[in-house]
Amino acid sequence: MTRRDHGGNLDEARARFGGADWIDLSTGINRRPYPLPPLPPHAWRDLPTRADIEALAAAAARRYGAGGAVLPLAGAQAAIQLYPRLERPGAARVLGPTYNEHAASLRAAGWRVREVATPEALCGADLAVIVNPDNPTGRDLPAATLTGIAAQVGRLVVDESFRDPTPAASVVPAAGGNLLVLRSFGKFYGLAGLRLGFAIGGGDTLDALAAMAGPWAVSGPACAIGRAALDDAAWAREAADALARDALRLDRLAEGAGWRLEGGTALFRLYDTPDAGASQEGLARHAIWSRIFPWSARAIRLGLPGHEHEWSRLATALSSLS
Amino acid sequence: MTRRDHGGNLDEARARFGGADWIDLSTGINRRPYPLPPLPPHAWRDLPTRADIEALAAAAARRYGAGGAVLPLAGAQAAIQLYPRLERPGAARVLGPTYNEHAASLRAAGWRVREVATPEALCGADLAVIVNPDNPTGRDLPAATLTGIAAQVGRLVVDESFRDPTPAASVVPAAGGNLLVLRSFGKFYGLAGLRLGFAIGGGDTLDALAAMAGPWAVSGPACAIGRAALDDAAWAREAADALARDALRLDRLAEGAGWRLEGGTALFRLYDTPDAGASQEGLARHAIWSRIFPWSARAIRLGLPGHEHEWSRLATALSSLS
Repeated sequence: MTRRDHGGNLDEARARFGGADWIDLSTGINRRPYPLPPLPPHAWRDLPTRADIEALAAAAARRYGAGGAVLPLAGAQAAIQLYPRLERPGAARVLGPTYNEHAASLRAAGWRVREVATPEALCGADLAVIVNPDNPTGRDLPAATLTGIAAQVGRLVVDESFRDPTPAASVVPAAGGNLLVLRSFGKFYGLAGLRLGFAIGGGDTLDALAAMAGPWAVSGPACAIGRAALDDAAWAREAADALARDALRLDRLAEGAGWRLEGGTALFRLYDTPDAGASQEGLARHAIWSRIFPWSARAIRLGLPGHEHEWSRLATALSSLS
Repeated sequence: MTRRDHGGNLDEARARFGGADWIDLSTGINRRPYPLPPLPPHAWRDLPTRADIEALAAAAARRYGAGGAVLPLAGAQAAIQLYPRLERPGAARVLGPTYNEHAASLRAAGWRVREVATPEALCGADLAVIVNPDNPTGRDLPAATLTGIAAQVGRLVVDESFRDPTPAASVVPAAGGNLLVLRSFGKFYGLAGLRLGFAIGGGDTLDALAAMAGPWAVSGPACAIGRAALDDAAWAREAADALARDALRLDRLAEGAGWRLEGGTALFRLYDTPDAGASQEGLARHAIWSRIFPWSARAIRLGLPGHEHEWSRLATALSSLS
C-alpha cells in the first residue's frame, strides 16, 4: 500500500494525539460543501450510461470553459495515476515544491523525474508538470506563460486542482495538443469523498486515458451530483466570494499568532512559523489538524474553517501559541 | 473512448427504440438493492482515511472468507484495468466465451490473448483468466479445479463477480501466491452505480495493484455503504434465497415463450431462442432491454426483474413472442 504523506490523514492525528471532534484543516477542501441534490435510485443501482457520463463532461466543459474534450475521472488523483502511461517514459521535470503525487506516479511508471525551481528550467523536458496555482506555495503562473512552456516541452500537464476560486486565470481554453489540464471537483465543491475530477486535452490523449480508466470510471452519484453542481453558476460565484473573504480572515488570525503569510489560494494558506512541528502540535492539542512538509522546518498549511464554531476554536488555539 | 458492447447500455436502447420507463434486464445487477444506510456528511466531504479503507477491507474479508489481503477498488472493472500491468506482457489465455473486458484489457496492455474452450487448455499460459461462475454461460468450476489450474500457469485470475449467491463455492480462501480473485460488490447488492469491488490475493500483488490505483481508489460513500452491507449477513442470506427463487420463476416464464435454459447464475439467465435478435427486439417493443452476443445468433441473457410490476410486464412481453 502506498504510504506517502498527505493531508486528510486524520486517523493518524487521532492515533498520535487521541481525542475526538477534530477539525481537519490539513487539506484544501472547502468545508462548506455544495448542498447534495436528491439522488434518483438509478444513480446508485445502475452502471452510469454513456449518456450520463457525456452529460457530466458537458457540464464540466461549460463550467471550466473547455472548447474541446473533457474526460470525467474518479478525482484529479485518478488522472495523476494514468497520465504517466500516455507515452514511453523519458525525462520528466516537475516545478516544485509541489503536491508529491506527480513525481511519485511518474517514477512508478518508469520516468526519470527532476524537480526544478523555475518555470524556465522545465523547457526541454519530455514531460513537464506544473500545479497551478501551486499546492502548497500558491505560486500562480499566467496562462500565457504556461502555453509558452508547452511549446518547449514534449507534453505539459497543468494540474488546476485549486483553480476554481480564480477561474478567469485558467489555461483550460488552451488545452489540447500537448497541453493536458487536470481539474478537481471535490476540493472547491467540498465533496472530496465523492471522487470526481476531469482531464481536459486533445481527443487522442483523452481517448488513451479513457481506455486505461475503463468504461465506468466515475460513479452514478458523481454523475448526478457533479452535473448539478457544475451547472450551478450562482453557487460557484458565492462560494468563491466566501472563500476569498475567509482566506483574509484566516490571515489575520495567523498574523495575530506571529505567523507570516507565505502564499496559498482561497482554499488553503501557507504560513511561515518559527517552528512548523511545534505549531502543528500546538494546534493538535486543540484537536485541529494541519499540514507540514518534509522540505521545510517552518512552513505550515491550513485549510479554511467552515462553521463559526470552527473559527472560534481555531482563534483560541492560535492565541494559545503566541 | 472505449466502445465495446456491454449490458447496461440503456441509452442505446432508448435511442434505437424510443420510449421511456424501460426495465433494464441487460445486466446481472440485482434489482432489489441493499437499502442505503444513512451516510454521515464526512463520507461525502472528506477523503477516505486509511482507517476507513482498512475497515471496508476487513468487512469484505469477513464476508468473502479471505484469510489474507483484500484491496478495495472502484468495481471489479477497476481490477480488470490494472491486473494486466502486474507483470511483463506474455501469453494470456481466457476461458471463453466470457465477459469481454478481460481479453480487451489484456490486449491493451500488450498481452497476446487466446480464448480457449476448456479449463485444461489454460495450462501453460503466463496468465490465465476464468470468470467463475461464468458470465454469461454460468459454467461453474469447483475450487479444487481452479487451484489445480493455478499450479500450471504463471498467474491465475478468477473473476468471482457473480459468486455471492453461492458463496460456499468460492476460491477466495485459497487466494494468494499466483491466484488473484476479483469480487464485485455492485451486482449482488444491486448498487452498481456506487463502483465498488475487491481484489483478493497475495500481499505483494495487492501492494502493486494499490500503488497503481492510488491512495483514494474508492469513494467515501462506497466505504460507508460497503462496510454496512458486507457485514449484514442476514440480508445476504435473504437476498440469495430470493434470487434463487426468482431465477426459477424466470425460467418458467422463458420456457413458456419456447426458450430453453442454457445456463446462468441466480443473478442472470442465458436462454437459447430461435433468433436472439428478434427476441431482443420483441422485448424492446415492451421497453424491456436484454443482452445478446456477437458469438451467438440464438443466445439471450436476462437479468431478474425486481418489483411485481416488472414481472408482470415481462410475462406480457414474453407471451407476445410465442
